[in-house]
Amino acid sequence: MNVVKATTQSSDLHAAMRALGRAAREAADKLALVDSAAKDHALRDMAAALRASKRTILEANADDLAEAKAKGLGAAMLDRLMLDEKRVEAMAKGLEEIADLPDPVGRTLAEWTRPNGLQIARVSVPLGVIGIIYESRPNVTADAGGLCLKAGNAAILRGGSESARSSAAIIDALQAGLRRAGLPAETIQAVPTSDRAAVGILLTMNDVIDVIVPRGGKGLIERVAAESRIPVLMHLEGNCHTYIDGDADPEKARAILVNAKMRRTGVCGATETVLVDERAKSLLPVIIDDLAKAGCEIRGDALFQAADNRVKPAAPADWDTEFLDAIIAARVVDGIAGAIAHIRAHGSKHTEAIVTENTTTAERFLSEVDAGIVLWNASTQFADGGEFGMGAEIGISTGKLHARGPVGCEQLTSYKYQVRGAGQVRP
Amino acid sequence: MNVVKATTQSSDLHAAMRALGRAAREAADKLALVDSAAKDHALRDMAAALRASKRTILEANADDLAEAKAKGLGAAMLDRLMLDEKRVEAMAKGLEEIADLPDPVGRTLAEWTRPNGLQIARVSVPLGVIGIIYESRPNVTADAGGLCLKAGNAAILRGGSESARSSAAIIDALQAGLRRAGLPAETIQAVPTSDRAAVGILLTMNDVIDVIVPRGGKGLIERVAAESRIPVLMHLEGNCHTYIDGDADPEKARAILVNAKMRRTGVCGATETVLVDERAKSLLPVIIDDLAKAGCEIRGDALFQAADNRVKPAAPADWDTEFLDAIIAARVVDGIAGAIAHIRAHGSKHTEAIVTENTTTAERFLSEVDAGIVLWNASTQFADGGEFGMGAEIGISTGKLHARGPVGCEQLTSYKYQVRGAGQVRP
Repeated sequence: MNVVKATTQSSDLHAAMRALGRAAREAADKLALVDSAAKDHALRDMAAALRASKRTILEANADDLAEAKAKGLGAAMLDRLMLDEKRVEAMAKGLEEIADLPDPVGRTLAEWTRPNGLQIARVSVPLGVIGIIYESRPNVTADAGGLCLKAGNAAILRGGSESARSSAAIIDALQAGLRRAGLPAETIQAVPTSDRAAVGILLTMNDVIDVIVPRGGKGLIERVAAESRIPVLMHLEGNCHTYIDGDADPEKARAILVNAKMRRTGVCGATETVLVDERAKSLLPVIIDDLAKAGCEIRGDALFQAADNRVKPAAPADWDTEFLDAIIAARVVDGIAGAIAHIRAHGSKHTEAIVTENTTTAERFLSEVDAGIVLWNASTQFADGGEFGMGAEIGISTGKLHARGPVGCEQLTSYKYQVRGAGQVRP
Repeated sequence: MNVVKATTQSSDLHAAMRALGRAAREAADKLALVDSAAKDHALRDMAAALRASKRTILEANADDLAEAKAKGLGAAMLDRLMLDEKRVEAMAKGLEEIADLPDPVGRTLAEWTRPNGLQIARVSVPLGVIGIIYESRPNVTADAGGLCLKAGNAAILRGGSESARSSAAIIDALQAGLRRAGLPAETIQAVPTSDRAAVGILLTMNDVIDVIVPRGGKGLIERVAAESRIPVLMHLEGNCHTYIDGDADPEKARAILVNAKMRRTGVCGATETVLVDERAKSLLPVIIDDLAKAGCEIRGDALFQAADNRVKPAAPADWDTEFLDAIIAARVVDGIAGAIAHIRAHGSKHTEAIVTENTTTAERFLSEVDAGIVLWNASTQFADGGEFGMGAEIGISTGKLHARGPVGCEQLTSYKYQVRGAGQVRP
């Protein structure tokens, strides 16, 4: 390796990243003062531009797909990477839905008057500049860009190298829409290189970037958490449980469980362990049959194994595993107390559900279980910003600071205190 | 140095810190389920215990003071460290004021129903375990412990070594109060050693600690920011401005400016630069005279220097300096646009004030200036949780994530989504 050249490249990369950051900061300063109508207008122009660029985007995506296939990427990865007319239209529709949401900026969150007459108001404001680091799915480009804009933020996007051409084409369209609407094109920018060093630089730019959102597998999230000098909104694990109480309606329990586990097994809100109340033991045969017929492998405790010979024995590690696959761990517990104790010991505080007709038991579960989302008589697969009515989501936060659960545009804001006085001085 | 012994000590320290963390987590799990009355009762019992232990606390403090004097600590440091009957009473009163505040936990922050009938509520919950690392002031021990308890959190406190005896005596009293009220004494614990390595271990305990709050000088905060694997709520700089507009009431402007700069020069909300509208130039002589008579050194631009020969020339670095002393930088600007541009270039986004009788100008300032606190016709020294009506404060956050501005007990909460269904499954 030519050391001199490497140094030059590295300082070039640093300079390019600094310029990107400065441009984002300037765009954010402008966006903070833009009114709701202008932002919504831009979102609609961006949607129109996506539709108008459909052919270009699909051609770029075909090139990405060809390269990914040549590299031997798996079917699931290829499906995530693939765009078609329907998926481009869904991105455009997503931007229009974001435009229809109320403006999360400028809301008075609280206000009060002090005994000395000072009037204090807490008012929502944009966060500023948001860095989003994601893997293969190119639609994240449009969703994340749209949510950031709605909340008055500038976005710096760093997608996976395998979707580089698709993302570039999408960003071109989004920027065309921004320009047409008279907003700075630098509202949505991409890191200009797939050089991994760029991510390292991005994570140290704490003077221009206010928050980092990583979206992807464990490797990516761990790297970001370890290296970032910027606060991170992150998604760790979704080891979710469905607890079927002794007072459950059997039909609700069966429908919810199969949906919670099998609707899509690769999503973070998929149930990974089913807990059944001892008093509901008579349900074991139908529950097992439902799951087995849906193609699910069941790894159960002794009682589950005794109920059906299709049940394999659960290993201790299974209680702590996010399978993201058609596998479920299954255990009989001693009522709600047993369920809560199991979830406390093994849950990842993501999404937890109870099925019961007993209101007292349900309210105890909703109150005592510590998780971002707790559900009563509903599938854990509802853990999703869209299902919560937030339009798109930029991810689901498993942390407790700032945002917990689905992160929509409201969660991409901060606040300031506006204090109105009449000449008060502090004694 | 005996290497074997060092290794043993280090693994002992690790074990002690792990035990501390586990005990805090267990206490937090219990506190999350305790009702408002029990927490408020404990806060009052803690106040009573502080009063009952007054003699012990003051004796411990006398020992700390004697050692600090022997080490040659400065007068300001000694004053911060010193406790007397009045200060102990103030700590007890502070806890009673926290007891009088509304419970920040269990509030419904938002609720809505989805078209599919799912009822979604966002409800405030405790953060969990909070680590507080602070320097000399022993009263932080009671304030921080009280605020954490009010929000249902357990606190791990790590005070400065110079106040170790005082803090230990205070924590003994607080724990006696907790025990009397039937709550776990481990709700408020101290790191059991002044070994600096303990802080390093604390900052990696991200499995038991949910947030770290450092309170102290730049050195401490930078170390915490660099080392912490746990989210940090931090206070960086308070380079605050007071802008005197052309439409200012001269008497309000004079009173506010002297208070904002000179009431206490060492606090983060002290004004460090005054900006005067060109149209208010005629005020320069009185403003300068007020400040000079109050003992303030003025470092001004050419127009300030021309107005009074007590004004020294400002160096470029003065615009970016948090003096925390009886020194002010002073500059004439071209109206509100000039003031906003100067603040954007040099401010630290902490606290900024405008003095004007013009509502349009004031509202523009309140809206466009990006800072945690923006004030109109009031002193920047109001930047304080107590003055905001939050009871005590655990600090002032200069970050934009989670909490911005004063951090009271409301800011020491997170939330969860409670979703109530009737058997819904996701299509």
